[in-house]
Amino acid sequence: MNEPKAPLHGITVVDLTRVLSGPFCTLMLADLGADVIKIETHKGDSTRVQGTLKDGFSWYYAAFNRNKRSIALDLYSEQGRAALTRMLETADVMVENFRPGVLDKMGFSAERLAQINPRLVSASVNGYGSTGPYVDRPSFDFIAQAMSGLMSVNGREGEEPLRNATPITDVLAGVYCALGIVAALRARDLNGVGQHVEAAMVNGAISTLAYLAAEYFVTDEIPKRTGNDHPIMSPYGLFTASDGSVAVAPSNDTILRRFLKIIDIEWVIDDPRYDTNHKRYHARREIDALVNERLVTETVDHWIDKLNKGGVPCGRALNVAEVFADPQVIAQEMAIEVEHPGRGMVKMLGFPIKFSQTPCVVRHPAPELGVDGRSVLAAHGYSEADIEALEALGVLKTPDAVA
Amino acid sequence: MNEPKAPLHGITVVDLTRVLSGPFCTLMLADLGADVIKIETHKGDSTRVQGTLKDGFSWYYAAFNRNKRSIALDLYSEQGRAALTRMLETADVMVENFRPGVLDKMGFSAERLAQINPRLVSASVNGYGSTGPYVDRPSFDFIAQAMSGLMSVNGREGEEPLRNATPITDVLAGVYCALGIVAALRARDLNGVGQHVEAAMVNGAISTLAYLAAEYFVTDEIPKRTGNDHPIMSPYGLFTASDGSVAVAPSNDTILRRFLKIIDIEWVIDDPRYDTNHKRYHARREIDALVNERLVTETVDHWIDKLNKGGVPCGRALNVAEVFADPQVIAQEMAIEVEHPGRGMVKMLGFPIKFSQTPCVVRHPAPELGVDGRSVLAAHGYSEADIEALEALGVLKTPDAVA
Repeated sequence: MNEPKAPLHGITVVDLTRVLSGPFCTLMLADLGADVIKIETHKGDSTRVQGTLKDGFSWYYAAFNRNKRSIALDLYSEQGRAALTRMLETADVMVENFRPGVLDKMGFSAERLAQINPRLVSASVNGYGSTGPYVDRPSFDFIAQAMSGLMSVNGREGEEPLRNATPITDVLAGVYCALGIVAALRARDLNGVGQHVEAAMVNGAISTLAYLAAEYFVTDEIPKRTGNDHPIMSPYGLFTASDGSVAVAPSNDTILRRFLKIIDIEWVIDDPRYDTNHKRYHARREIDALVNERLVTETVDHWIDKLNKGGVPCGRALNVAEVFADPQVIAQEMAIEVEHPGRGMVKMLGFPIKFSQTPCVVRHPAPELGVDGRSVLAAHGYSEADIEALEALGVLKTPDAVA
Repeated sequence: MNEPKAPLHGITVVDLTRVLSGPFCTLMLADLGADVIKIETHKGDSTRVQGTLKDGFSWYYAAFNRNKRSIALDLYSEQGRAALTRMLETADVMVENFRPGVLDKMGFSAERLAQINPRLVSASVNGYGSTGPYVDRPSFDFIAQAMSGLMSVNGREGEEPLRNATPITDVLAGVYCALGIVAALRARDLNGVGQHVEAAMVNGAISTLAYLAAEYFVTDEIPKRTGNDHPIMSPYGLFTASDGSVAVAPSNDTILRRFLKIIDIEWVIDDPRYDTNHKRYHARREIDALVNERLVTETVDHWIDKLNKGGVPCGRALNVAEVFADPQVIAQEMAIEVEHPGRGMVKMLGFPIKFSQTPCVVRHPAPELGVDGRSVLAAHGYSEADIEALEALGVLKTPDAVA
């Protein structure tokens, strides 16, 4: 039998994205097997020089641009835009994360794109969406967290609103956009034409409000910051064992009874003071004290083993080093090592989606700036002389031309 | 011209999921146009009675189960499992969020599924993945946040690890799984066969570590909790205007210069004490004081207007009520109202992915428990007499049978 083809085998993506939200989207497409042609400025994606560099090389860039190719093309020049047009004629997907309107000004309005290639799926990862009063505002993960309400519920009562420390709005908007793109490719199979797809960072962050939003809509009560306490469940949170903290989340009464039984205070759930979630919620501190009194008698390891075996969701608030040393995370290959010619081995995050037949693989490491410029243009009908002319004009930057 | 078909038009999903992570995945598929048949227990998904109910109705359930159909079927019975088998024979997708192994025990191992329907895409949203030492552990959003390292970086220095207040691991694993499923449908178009797809909550949460993970891998330094301070950029954070806080995130030196110029302290970036990000990072408190001294002279509205116009990412840490009253969020239709027959209008979250040709729509509201049981079975070849027999046996629960 032939090797099965990757889900996005045969799909070409023209990638105009930079930094994180857009590159995360095209990373998903690249990991699913698409040929992603990343068009960079002559300086390259700014993440090429962000974070701690190792021998001048950015592991941040490497992690989020694997499986992509790079061409360094000046899109402010007419010739650069002509080359982009040529690529769009045969591409399946174009992704950008400029502010809405920027691509228009470069000469690539929605109408123009449809003219160039009616089968093209064009996609935008942006801050606020491309309609509405804030359409021209710049965005950034921290701001999207602020404007989505996420910060208003994160953190502790009595303290200021707090950002979530991981760039969740970048990642989530990237994944939403990738889902939209793959769905639009399927719609193209059905309808014969491409369309425009968008995912905004604020909208993605709003979607994480989930039951907090449902609760607000039904009660009109504004959700508050509750730290590690669950807004409607008790007991729940970080408790104190003899040598550290244990996170415990008994998600319903059956599991709560199991939990209390294992820690030998099953009586709590039958006590008339604590026999409903509502009563327990209002006696949270009393119950936390009862739980802690029991947990402190044994180690974290002891409880994690015992509670998990008893079917009670629990764990340890691992630090990042502990996460990547965790046998489960290792078994799931959530950190991988990729050899980068001339740069050595680079460690990076693994694949969050697992496929039994077409697993994501690293087909090639993240590209050096502009390394695929010549071959990409040649494949789009540019002759050797054309390419040299573009280099001479300063439109195309290639490693050869630099050396 | 005909109305364009939705991306997942013609795709049937058998949905065994409950609560949030799995239902969020199948919500994505339903919103993209798939026919999602939700198989519930006779008691129904537990979210039907969670959160504040309005006239006995859960807006939480309503929000995350729109566009789906419901059949209440006892899968512990032989006849229930036979009906499930019948549905799987012609389905395109099956999704579940049991603990790994549970479906096996019910008689639906991967091998059996491939036997029943080799074109089936089967998918699992789970806590830790289906291989590795923690495969049997129960999970929950709070625990996935703890075990992924997310909590270890969230919160303030000197305080305990803090969960992110929105159920981000449920949402993200759901979206990853939906992306995996749509990709696997495309792979099926190429290869002719289905496969198994998985997204684990811990793995999804790990993916949000993004540049924090890259930084850890390259430096071996464990990322710390830094509250609202960016771990490597300064100034950045919540600042104090005359009537409240402003979130400001100048993402590079060019934007920082603009910011400082607008607030009239451009000299800071040229001062030898503060002229690199590294120096500013170490003088964060001094610089924050300089910024606050300026911002406190005007209102939040003033600065948000002025900074946005100047291209500086900024915003307000809106509470949830302010979010849904925000003109941008209204323009993006991130809250929608859906009429539920007999239950009135229900307000819920809108669609985070926007399509120009095939926009997501509410084709029908979330179903009452078991309301589609009879029609679903009839469509799978069950006669009226068969269906009545299943009701009489207590295998199928329908609203009719109850009334």
